Amino acid sequence: MSGALLFRRHSFRNISIKRFLSRSLIREKAFALKKDEFESRHIGPRDRDIISMLDFLGYKSLDHLTDAAVPKNIRLTKPLEIEEPTGEYDLIKRIRTIAEKNQIWRSYIGMGYHNCCVPHTIMRNIFENPGWTTNYTPYQPEVAQGRLEGLLNYQTMISELTGLEVANASLLDEGTAAAEALSLCYRHTKRRKLFVSKKLHPQTISVIETRLTSLGLDVETVDVFDTDFSNHDVAGVMIQYPDTEGNVLDFSSVSEQAHSHGTLVCCATDLLSLTLLRPPSEFGADIAIGTSQRFGVPLGYGGPHAGFFSCNQSLVRLMPGRMIGVTRDASGRDAYRLALQTREQHIRRDKATSNICTAQALLANMAAMFAVYHGPQGLKDIASNVHNNTLVLNHGLKKDGHETQKSTFFDTLRIEPKISVDEIRSRAMEKKINLRYYDDGAVGVSLDETVTVEDVNDLFYCFASGNNVDGLVQNEEPEIMKVSITNSPFKRTSPFLTHSVFNSHHSETRIVRYMKTLENKDISLVHSMIPLGSCTMKLNSTTEMMPCSFQHFTDIHPFSPLDQTEGYQQLFAELEKDLCSVTGYDKISFQPNSGAQGEYAGLRAIQCYHEARGDKHRDVCLIPVSAHGTNPASAQMAGMRVEPVKIRQNGSVDVDDLMAKAEKFRNRLSCLMITYPSTNGVFEETIADICEVIHKNGGQVYLDGANMNAQVGLCRPGDYGSDVSHLNLHKTFCIPHGGGGPGMGPIGVKKHLIPFLPGHPVVNPHSAATAGPVSAAPFGSSAILPISWAYIKMMGPRGLKKATQVAILNANYMSARLESHYTTLFKCSTSKLIAHEFIIDCRDFKKTANIEVADIAKRLMDFGFHAPTMSWPVPGTLMIEPTESEDKQELDRFCEAMITIRQEIRDIEEGRLEIRMNPLKMAPHTQEQVVCSNWERPYTREQAAFPAPFVRPETKIWPSVARIDDIYGDKHLVCTCPPVLPEYNY
Amino acid sequence: MSGALLFRRHSFRNISIKRFLSRSLIREKAFALKKDEFESRHIGPRDRDIISMLDFLGYKSLDHLTDAAVPKNIRLTKPLEIEEPTGEYDLIKRIRTIAEKNQIWRSYIGMGYHNCCVPHTIMRNIFENPGWTTNYTPYQPEVAQGRLEGLLNYQTMISELTGLEVANASLLDEGTAAAEALSLCYRHTKRRKLFVSKKLHPQTISVIETRLTSLGLDVETVDVFDTDFSNHDVAGVMIQYPDTEGNVLDFSSVSEQAHSHGTLVCCATDLLSLTLLRPPSEFGADIAIGTSQRFGVPLGYGGPHAGFFSCNQSLVRLMPGRMIGVTRDASGRDAYRLALQTREQHIRRDKATSNICTAQALLANMAAMFAVYHGPQGLKDIASNVHNNTLVLNHGLKKDGHETQKSTFFDTLRIEPKISVDEIRSRAMEKKINLRYYDDGAVGVSLDETVTVEDVNDLFYCFASGNNVDGLVQNEEPEIMKVSITNSPFKRTSPFLTHSVFNSHHSETRIVRYMKTLENKDISLVHSMIPLGSCTMKLNSTTEMMPCSFQHFTDIHPFSPLDQTEGYQQLFAELEKDLCSVTGYDKISFQPNSGAQGEYAGLRAIQCYHEARGDKHRDVCLIPVSAHGTNPASAQMAGMRVEPVKIRQNGSVDVDDLMAKAEKFRNRLSCLMITYPSTNGVFEETIADICEVIHKNGGQVYLDGANMNAQVGLCRPGDYGSDVSHLNLHKTFCIPHGGGGPGMGPIGVKKHLIPFLPGHPVVNPHSAATAGPVSAAPFGSSAILPISWAYIKMMGPRGLKKATQVAILNANYMSARLESHYTTLFKCSTSKLIAHEFIIDCRDFKKTANIEVADIAKRLMDFGFHAPTMSWPVPGTLMIEPTESEDKQELDRFCEAMITIRQEIRDIEEGRLEIRMNPLKMAPHTQEQVVCSNWERPYTREQAAFPAPFVRPETKIWPSVARIDDIYGDKHLVCTCPPVLPEYNY
Repeated sequence: MSGALLFRRHSFRNISIKRFLSRSLIREKAFALKKDEFESRHIGPRDRDIISMLDFLGYKSLDHLTDAAVPKNIRLTKPLEIEEPTGEYDLIKRIRTIAEKNQIWRSYIGMGYHNCCVPHTIMRNIFENPGWTTNYTPYQPEVAQGRLEGLLNYQTMISELTGLEVANASLLDEGTAAAEALSLCYRHTKRRKLFVSKKLHPQTISVIETRLTSLGLDVETVDVFDTDFSNHDVAGVMIQYPDTEGNVLDFSSVSEQAHSHGTLVCCATDLLSLTLLRPPSEFGADIAIGTSQRFGVPLGYGGPHAGFFSCNQSLVRLMPGRMIGVTRDASGRDAYRLALQTREQHIRRDKATSNICTAQALLANMAAMFAVYHGPQGLKDIASNVHNNTLVLNHGLKKDGHETQKSTFFDTLRIEPKISVDEIRSRAMEKKINLRYYDDGAVGVSLDETVTVEDVNDLFYCFASGNNVDGLVQNEEPEIMKVSITNSPFKRTSPFLTHSVFNSHHSETRIVRYMKTLENKDISLVHSMIPLGSCTMKLNSTTEMMPCSFQHFTDIHPFSPLDQTEGYQQLFAELEKDLCSVTGYDKISFQPNSGAQGEYAGLRAIQCYHEARGDKHRDVCLIPVSAHGTNPASAQMAGMRVEPVKIRQNGSVDVDDLMAKAEKFRNRLSCLMITYPSTNGVFEETIADICEVIHKNGGQVYLDGANMNAQVGLCRPGDYGSDVSHLNLHKTFCIPHGGGGPGMGPIGVKKHLIPFLPGHPVVNPHSAATAGPVSAAPFGSSAILPISWAYIKMMGPRGLKKATQVAILNANYMSARLESHYTTLFKCSTSKLIAHEFIIDCRDFKKTANIEVADIAKRLMDFGFHAPTMSWPVPGTLMIEPTESEDKQELDRFCEAMITIRQEIRDIEEGRLEIRMNPLKMAPHTQEQVVCSNWERPYTREQAAFPAPFVRPETKIWPSVARIDDIYGDKHLVCTCPPVLPEYNY
Repeated sequence: MSGALLFRRHSFRNISIKRFLSRSLIREKAFALKKDEFESRHIGPRDRDIISMLDFLGYKSLDHLTDAAVPKNIRLTKPLEIEEPTGEYDLIKRIRTIAEKNQIWRSYIGMGYHNCCVPHTIMRNIFENPGWTTNYTPYQPEVAQGRLEGLLNYQTMISELTGLEVANASLLDEGTAAAEALSLCYRHTKRRKLFVSKKLHPQTISVIETRLTSLGLDVETVDVFDTDFSNHDVAGVMIQYPDTEGNVLDFSSVSEQAHSHGTLVCCATDLLSLTLLRPPSEFGADIAIGTSQRFGVPLGYGGPHAGFFSCNQSLVRLMPGRMIGVTRDASGRDAYRLALQTREQHIRRDKATSNICTAQALLANMAAMFAVYHGPQGLKDIASNVHNNTLVLNHGLKKDGHETQKSTFFDTLRIEPKISVDEIRSRAMEKKINLRYYDDGAVGVSLDETVTVEDVNDLFYCFASGNNVDGLVQNEEPEIMKVSITNSPFKRTSPFLTHSVFNSHHSETRIVRYMKTLENKDISLVHSMIPLGSCTMKLNSTTEMMPCSFQHFTDIHPFSPLDQTEGYQQLFAELEKDLCSVTGYDKISFQPNSGAQGEYAGLRAIQCYHEARGDKHRDVCLIPVSAHGTNPASAQMAGMRVEPVKIRQNGSVDVDDLMAKAEKFRNRLSCLMITYPSTNGVFEETIADICEVIHKNGGQVYLDGANMNAQVGLCRPGDYGSDVSHLNLHKTFCIPHGGGGPGMGPIGVKKHLIPFLPGHPVVNPHSAATAGPVSAAPFGSSAILPISWAYIKMMGPRGLKKATQVAILNANYMSARLESHYTTLFKCSTSKLIAHEFIIDCRDFKKTANIEVADIAKRLMDFGFHAPTMSWPVPGTLMIEPTESEDKQELDRFCEAMITIRQEIRDIEEGRLEIRMNPLKMAPHTQEQVVCSNWERPYTREQAAFPAPFVRPETKIWPSVARIDDIYGDKHLVCTCPPVLPEYNY
């Protein structure tokens, strides 16, 4: 073939230029600006797949499908008022500009937030690695041993540093951990009075007050050294060590007093200081709480960070939150899993120890890895460094005539300056240094790991001191050291972090391999779909995640003056506007840092609203029995009385029962908590009517936003009658689940509830707010809000709507594909459609084949899949939510796995497989089992490990342990790192 | 135990405060500044391990060991003149400050470098992911199928876009690819004359001239449309399409002319344009070359990027560089591996097709993934966008009376402006826009993927035009489109990227899973040690890698004015100073972007030096027979005559033979190329004497810097007689290997060679330089130099020295531990020590057990290890180099694997294992094999897959294919993506 000929043969063609141009240039402009690129990256199915799936279901278009699926009376009839989409590259430029409006000052404010050196290798290989961030909560431990080991390290670290026997796998922050601790005291002692030291961080006091007064308890802020426990009516006392002003005091006498009168002692404490200080256990604390932020987690304007909680073994069954325990697997080997889940809300509902669901798994893992990387000596070195700098600062200031600490201290000084505070403030501003300014004219300074000699010299400058570190150290060492912890009775003598995991991984080569080993044990979204009903495991894109590492977002203290955080304020304002557009609400509070926190904050707003109207007696909260366990748990925490509402056979709310109860309690009705579309995965047609009934009877409607992914762009809670909702930004709005947190649960409210949004004692996010704070930080986990902001900006109004439509399409497609194999339990009675998730019924298999839903869940691991939501909201079922991010091929793979499993069940039913020893009962299968010479099972190794053509050796995802024995673990509770077998210890 | 009692019992102790303080505050200061932290992160063994290893070897200290290992007469007697170490956190601040001295302007200079949108998910999940960056060249294909698949995608992409049948897996850059193409023409035709179009990029012409004139060939720069081939003496002609001025011309007649006279046609081309333009194959090109930079790889001030090379099938055996081919494994399944290695320098030495060793695997993988992510339509959309913007610009400028392109164009215009260039320049500077300014007053503009409508409007402004895009498009569409490619005979009609891999992974969810699937097939440093003798696979730390992603390093065009690149200039100056301190040289050239390039550049400098002294006849290069294959290949390329020097029984250079040859060729002696410590892993005591002999006979000494990791801080080539060395920054100085590149091979020279360092036609890096360029970019792969800079800054003088000492300790420890199992082939005759690597002899096993060294290498995979260097420099041996980054536990694990293997060999020798079917011969073992129901081997599945206690199911690294059949693959050469089996295609 001659190129020359070919070339010459084509004459110039002028036809259809106009058409080409208008099309191509419109496209070009859009494309050049990358306006609409991201939508096709986020949404999994290609247009050709969408057409074929619609065809399969018998619909002509996405609109046609959603017109059928979503009740007409609640449909949004106009486009979302969201700006046109921004492309991925422009978005990064834009968010960088916003970030850079935040000013990075040196913040020595302290109050529970300290700058620290985040090890770069941990930042990159955990925080910036989708293999760690996109995991789900480790409910399926066989494919979650990596992060479970990380969290067990965390518990061991907390337990050993605080000196208490057990610790949980993180709470949301220090404030809520403190509130949880005192709640525990109440539950343990049944006493209704609580003492709180006035030397706690102010936000801790406020969160305690909010939380416990809504439980109807009596909280007194006291000087704990001058307190009388002798009435035997105090459940617990909360102290802080070192306290908010930096004092390290001996609480032995307080503890003795408290204990001798049956009062529990709770201690807020600082992990880094405990490497040098005697742990709280040694002066009798029963519970220790705090934050592990300064262990290698960025400030992030308040979060996300992991709060910690440890206590004596005797209190373990009352402990709130997730706890990792050691158990054994079906092969008798050590394995990890969530322990004592019977304490938790998803099991105990309003009887649960707390409403905690999302924790801070990712941040707890980072903090634990920080300890693994540094080891006990490395941590001590960091602490000594911080302490010695503080000693020199203290000495110099004292020498200049400022009044400083009288007691022992670690890193924090409260200074009564001899010069005016205004001068100090102006000098500090000159140096871009933030200090803590007390109301009484004192000035607080808290040093941290990043502080250098130059920084201390700059602090001397702030106090108009001519001192400098080198001079002081050279000439006055003995004087300086007199007040060191090392020379005090507070010096720590007990060892900590002696386990080999904290003494092995100190080179970067080693820690990288350790992190990778753990990562590779776990299934995350980088492997396959995680179709968790109600959890919306969708794409967490790199572009959304990138800003979370921007220094101008990470390095900001939450109590920085607002004029230094204009970037964050702009981000909040823009995201608020967008979320209001999406939901139909009038105002958003970003303070709640989980869905359960949002529920609580929303219910508190309702409660305060009623109170403000003189309706204090309104305390009945109607909750359908199919609700998520956090609903009743939160209502209980908000001091409400839960009245369950019945569910009909078809899964919908029994409207008659609801009406009857609304009527019955009309004088005491506080609110209805309802999820929409329902937790059964159905758009109920009556939702608007239901809201009306509640309002008629004086109640408010709390609409749980867990299922917003079925609504965005199609309908808005604020339009059809809801007064308040929380939004799980970690579901619908793309914050990754992090293996069990962080999350964000901001709430949206209608105008009349605005005054009752959470306030804050240090930085008040809503000038109108009169309610107390629900979280320690004024804007919750601010540092992850850019993720949701970016998602909305990149999708734009049409993209957001299409995402919802495809989420509904994907779910209906799967339900239809599985139809002849599994029954979808609930569908809309008229359209026969489901919403964005569906429940398949597996209950009969128990009778026909002795197969339980757990067997199916474990068997799915052999196919490389994480199980859907199991036995919720209906026991014996699976709830499947594919989300819009999964493409048709992946849906088909999952369906094929399910169909293969159904065939295996049929093989049991019909006798082709044994009833006891079959691939389902024995699932999941480990390498050790299928490689073992001694295979004596009545099915083949290949059927065990490679049960479908798409399960290939070269891409196989193996469970790292065999089936977990939960009961054994709860009976023999071990919640710290187990001894290491020699063969593992290399 | 009462806490209170414990607390009170301690009285205040004042003793030893002074001692504590002085110690602790010195430490504190150091710690606060994080001065010396990194050393202990980089060096694997803890001090306690170092002591025990020294003890094992019978030495008291590291100094004691290195005094014994390194000859006294060459020892460096003073500390390195390197500044004190910077901590990891300060380092990032510091390098950020340096980076920000670079100014990010919009660069429309073109000339082979175009800004592009690097997909964030590819950036994060490949470029910033140690699972992709720390891999070695895929010589062990069973544990490298992931990146081999990526590179096969690359070859398929290049082959289909250029329309030629085969492509290689990348070359270093466009310039060297062009030179390689013309060398091929010479080798193919044996003709010594070459034509080069004057419309090539100027640096391409210069690199061709440097390379080919040193081969003694005759290069003529011509107007290819006015050229006479009829003498039958022209080997090849190099054209460019679109050419450097942007013209798209029909070369059919040129091709016809050339072909009809036996001349090959080479075409430099632009990948993006080829999505719209007919490929070069269609007008008869035999070879196509270029760069794939604009496919999602940052500008990086010139590199690293992948050069590409494709050609007709008939030329494949002459093709330079690495090529991936499809073959089958022992189970008969498709598998990938390096094909036709017999062309390469490590086999053919001075007969090789080129000296290419390191390529640009990482960047080729990124570019291929860019195509996978966008797919053919996505690429076409990007190209149309670029082209349409250029059309509008062209039209507007023309309308204003500027003279623009007469021919068809894609993205580049050469404008003869009607206004003064000075005005344009000043307007462009105002807008921070870089244009190309031709010497004749014309101005060049090249648009790219990132260009928006606003950018085009700014370009109108530069030309004092009142036009704007929207206005033009609205009113003059037909006119604008008249000259579109779409309406020209150049419009592409042939399909490309039709393979399913380019049509499946378009959502981010999908591409992330694809990247992860490939990553998880490969062994990298995140899994286990890669003890590759001579390749120094050490830690590539996150802190070193981070700056490579800084926008102020990535977004700079290599031909930006020097006053915009002050940051880079500072980086080069500081790194040069440090490298001079380390090596004892006087000047560094950063231009060579691989070790082999460095060799070539160094030899060229020597050659030019002789020429300048009138010694043009000096062309003999002495090379010991144990040298790395690149040495003779480079010498041949530099036009030298290679004279091999013998090696003694003990592995050392035969000094008598060397002296005799130096003497014999004294009138023609150009230089000696020698590696030190020797490629046999020994510090030879005679090196200084050898250098003296060479100098005496009028020669220069080229010391191959591959083994610098044994010398840094202990001895310096510049001190003991060498004149020039290249430094593999990707070995000793921590640039990761990227799975086969990028690398950097800057050369250091003594003062007298400075004038002969490579120059550059566009930006001259050395004002003194008179020699031509060896690479397309003036400073080579600038964007990865921060890695080496950071390593040196963080280690400081003592850290660098200690690293070398521990590297030597680690190697000697392993050699000693393996001593009773394997013989270390060469040791220093006096100290009985080795340097930083050692060779174990496996040749006897062939006789005793029919075991070859490859069997051991493959068996190591079953233990989770990448094999050491195989059969080099001595056939039938393994060369082991642990580096300082591996700790004692890892060395012990590897030794245990080797000892277990030795036991297996003994079992064969002694009849306990079968001679043909044993775990070594059958290695590596795949999941498919050991899980197969049908196991009929005379050893167990467990022995196959879990051969040592530390090989655990939960952390097992599996080879993804069984043993590769190399011969089959070379016989049935397939170098593009094979058809997909249905079961894989989900």
